[in-house]
Amino acid sequence: MRVVVIGAVALGPKAASRFKRLMPEAEVTLVDQSSRISYGGCGIPYYISDEVNRIEELQTTPYGTIRDAAFFKTHKGVVALTQTRATAIDRPAKRVTVEDLVTGKPSVLPYDKLVLALGSSPRFPPVPGIELAGVSPATNLEEAERIKNAVSTGGVKNAVVVGGGFIGLELAVALGDMWGIPTSVVEIAGQILPGFLSPSLARMAGKDLSDNGITVYVREKVLRFEGKGGRVARVVTDKRELSADLVVMSTGIRPNTELAGAAGLTLTDQGLIVVDEYLRTSDPDIYAGGDCVSIINLVTGKPGWYPLGSMANRQGRIIGTNLAGGDAAFPGAVGSWGVKLFAQSAAGAGLNIENALREGFDAINVHVEQIDRAHFYPDKNVMALEMVVEKSTRRILGIQGMNANGDALASRINAVVPLLSRRGEVADVSNLEVLYSPPFAAAMDIVNVAGNVAENILEGRLVPVNQEEFEKLWAARDKEEVYFIDTRVSRDAEPFVRKYPKHWRAIPQDEISRRLEEIPGDKPIILVCNTGLRSFEAQLALRVHGVRDTRSLLGGVSGVKRSGVDI
Amino acid sequence: MRVVVIGAVALGPKAASRFKRLMPEAEVTLVDQSSRISYGGCGIPYYISDEVNRIEELQTTPYGTIRDAAFFKTHKGVVALTQTRATAIDRPAKRVTVEDLVTGKPSVLPYDKLVLALGSSPRFPPVPGIELAGVSPATNLEEAERIKNAVSTGGVKNAVVVGGGFIGLELAVALGDMWGIPTSVVEIAGQILPGFLSPSLARMAGKDLSDNGITVYVREKVLRFEGKGGRVARVVTDKRELSADLVVMSTGIRPNTELAGAAGLTLTDQGLIVVDEYLRTSDPDIYAGGDCVSIINLVTGKPGWYPLGSMANRQGRIIGTNLAGGDAAFPGAVGSWGVKLFAQSAAGAGLNIENALREGFDAINVHVEQIDRAHFYPDKNVMALEMVVEKSTRRILGIQGMNANGDALASRINAVVPLLSRRGEVADVSNLEVLYSPPFAAAMDIVNVAGNVAENILEGRLVPVNQEEFEKLWAARDKEEVYFIDTRVSRDAEPFVRKYPKHWRAIPQDEISRRLEEIPGDKPIILVCNTGLRSFEAQLALRVHGVRDTRSLLGGVSGVKRSGVDI
Repeated sequence: MRVVVIGAVALGPKAASRFKRLMPEAEVTLVDQSSRISYGGCGIPYYISDEVNRIEELQTTPYGTIRDAAFFKTHKGVVALTQTRATAIDRPAKRVTVEDLVTGKPSVLPYDKLVLALGSSPRFPPVPGIELAGVSPATNLEEAERIKNAVSTGGVKNAVVVGGGFIGLELAVALGDMWGIPTSVVEIAGQILPGFLSPSLARMAGKDLSDNGITVYVREKVLRFEGKGGRVARVVTDKRELSADLVVMSTGIRPNTELAGAAGLTLTDQGLIVVDEYLRTSDPDIYAGGDCVSIINLVTGKPGWYPLGSMANRQGRIIGTNLAGGDAAFPGAVGSWGVKLFAQSAAGAGLNIENALREGFDAINVHVEQIDRAHFYPDKNVMALEMVVEKSTRRILGIQGMNANGDALASRINAVVPLLSRRGEVADVSNLEVLYSPPFAAAMDIVNVAGNVAENILEGRLVPVNQEEFEKLWAARDKEEVYFIDTRVSRDAEPFVRKYPKHWRAIPQDEISRRLEEIPGDKPIILVCNTGLRSFEAQLALRVHGVRDTRSLLGGVSGVKRSGVDI
Repeated sequence: MRVVVIGAVALGPKAASRFKRLMPEAEVTLVDQSSRISYGGCGIPYYISDEVNRIEELQTTPYGTIRDAAFFKTHKGVVALTQTRATAIDRPAKRVTVEDLVTGKPSVLPYDKLVLALGSSPRFPPVPGIELAGVSPATNLEEAERIKNAVSTGGVKNAVVVGGGFIGLELAVALGDMWGIPTSVVEIAGQILPGFLSPSLARMAGKDLSDNGITVYVREKVLRFEGKGGRVARVVTDKRELSADLVVMSTGIRPNTELAGAAGLTLTDQGLIVVDEYLRTSDPDIYAGGDCVSIINLVTGKPGWYPLGSMANRQGRIIGTNLAGGDAAFPGAVGSWGVKLFAQSAAGAGLNIENALREGFDAINVHVEQIDRAHFYPDKNVMALEMVVEKSTRRILGIQGMNANGDALASRINAVVPLLSRRGEVADVSNLEVLYSPPFAAAMDIVNVAGNVAENILEGRLVPVNQEEFEKLWAARDKEEVYFIDTRVSRDAEPFVRKYPKHWRAIPQDEISRRLEEIPGDKPIILVCNTGLRSFEAQLALRVHGVRDTRSLLGGVSGVKRSGVDI
């Protein structure tokens, strides 16, 4: 049996190696246009930051052997043709035409089964000056080396990252953290990590960046790049000019599916290859996976796109199994992700509130803040967690969060991942059996609390105001349309009362039933505490006494402060 | 409505507070024989170690208020009767008789609904000398204060912890780590953490303890304690005498269910209160939860026992809801746990291999070792993970592991927890969508690899030898019944060849097909590499050439070294 695999970065080598393990007598040929294959492209930000010293480390096995063509020959029994481009697929004849990029010589590779691991390419907006030297997408090892050479030799005084998605932010952190280069991020959407975080968590992430020297501009469009002598010197946006001798373009990617389209394989409207759950294309002798295919979103049930190295690896193994006659299935994805910034990490899975509403779910977003261990344990952080819940079914649609300890955050996000694809509900999260020990979790852990708070809201017991709404109300405090009451102990509330004597009132939660005469009856009451627990209890106490027009701030003053609101 | 809650440590206060939130007009009375209530008993080891400075921190809210009777009165509207013992339940009359332990005065509390949060007590083996001063179970705050006072004033020169379960180990770490007290752990079973870890992971845990000055004695029975002037001075076991001026008894607990039994409530053979999924006892007006009840094990479907603070909290909320007329259900537990030692943490969920076999499952245990991030990321550790799988159904029965970064371990264990209760299979773990980013996970993450390795074993492709079997074979190497081949690169294998020229052969994986003449045909071949990946590839290569009597070491030399085997 002869198998040809086009693309040798992540999915291709994995599929080839797995298949050869199952069917050692088969002939497998990997084809890739680059000279470097089988590398961890996700490591590029860490190479640029110098946390990874040598670029070869992105291309080695865990035991230090370079994964080049010789490695695939001797260790895997796979022939790898590097610097070779596949130019056409002749499906009736089952042949791939390839071109040797060094000699220009074409040749033909016959196949019994073909694997398309075509990957993706950076997608640039049509901005004048994009051809200037110093403007780079930083997506392959050659560009990464160029950038690192420039930054490490002091050749970069100012950098601009265009695009505030997670790759863009990783690159901004790499430039700012290790090299101390003044770096700006320009994002066209109204927040960083659009589509992944809520506005309030995005502001927390933005605060971590700005606290560490990265300037973030949102709702701002790059108009052109200006240069000197063919090199970029300035980024001109619709609001300002930024000096820059390095511009990293992180404005999204597009799937490399021209070859598949030209061969007549079925593509989606977005141009992604359509595959079934066995990762077979519309031609049963051709498999495809990774960045170039459409995968079912297990939350919405609709086709989605998950261009991630982890997806590519898992799908590669599935394809390898099926090439050998197996029937391994890849059911779909919920879309889990994570990004380490400076002092904080952000992570999530499933839909954020914006996407849930756009998908037509009648959903709420629950924001909780709590210490990530037993509160008495000394080494701890306040974690923020948001959970998106469908109202009518109480189904969990997504979870996102922010924490200084990214692993502790991952331990909560990962626990919810299997529930997202299995239609888990609020009660499943309330009872989720995350492991408990004081150094790792609280006895009533933040993830359980997210379930509990969601239930209280859905039952109408907790009437919330979220961080965005609170910020607007607070900004408009001079209109006196609402009445703010801090329900914390005096020690915590007093500094706010002193700073805002006209707008900030303090009535500790345990005194509120005795001080009803201080509660105005003519306007809504906004109850706040540190995280949202005592303000909820105050809300319940007021309700007993007939005071019903109240809101409790989800995530409390802790959330407000951490998202950088001046309060 | 009048509710009486007997027991005010974890479940009792939670049930009372939740119920009062739902039904503020109800009367709720908490009864506890101690003067201290609503405390985090799980924090005692961290108080003894001085990571928690003041004992009051275990009894405060996250915002620093002491949870005493006054707090429950003002903040929760709950009457707490401390130093008050419940002596009888008159179910027909719906009354609890209590005794004021200070005045000795009895009184009667009528109830509409009763909650039993009776907890558990330390269980001592019948060992002579157990009454000596300095022998303590360290399970309540008074004892914890006494122990800390003794250790912090230099009054303890040598300590012995009897029992190597996770509380015992936490206490041993507390004494050894912070105070530098020479401490021994004596465990009657063949390993520490019996019932939770496999023997090989338990040895890894033991090595971490012994590397940090704790002496661990397993398969050793305490015969008696000997003292001087009424204070303990020595622990005599069936193998040795140990000096000790502090003995911490961590030999298990028993449920406090005498009161429930005397009232005629149904108990299990173990003496646990039987409850339904709404946590109602055999009397529908009496609820019970926490350490004193039996809960369904969601892996086996049989009754189990989960005396953990996290269980008590979650069950308390369920009871609070149901007291108010709700129908919240507690479906059961899979048994997740974690413990931080010195440089390592251990954690798990579900059944370990020993329990799975005892429960009648035809199960295998899969051991994998892999870096807990992208292998090129600088801040990383080698994690060990074991997964217990039922052969016929491929169902996941349990997962256990060990890692220097406990949160990173928790992020894998927690991800599997929802699968354990939902009959998840090997393929679900292979495709488990744990979040990927180089600082948090590998693109093919260790938890996915555990699924992949299990599948390879179940398909008969990977014929394994586990760490325990390897250790036995290696110990008997002079018999030359098997042939050991190291398939790593020469650099890694050479030191072993030099150390064991007679027994340790090196043939790198990529050379093995060319060096078949070096493979003896008359005995089983044990293939090893660093973690088990290359030895598996070597096994496949040999099979192609007709060499079938081979075994690949799961977890590799990495696992062998980390478990302290002298190799």
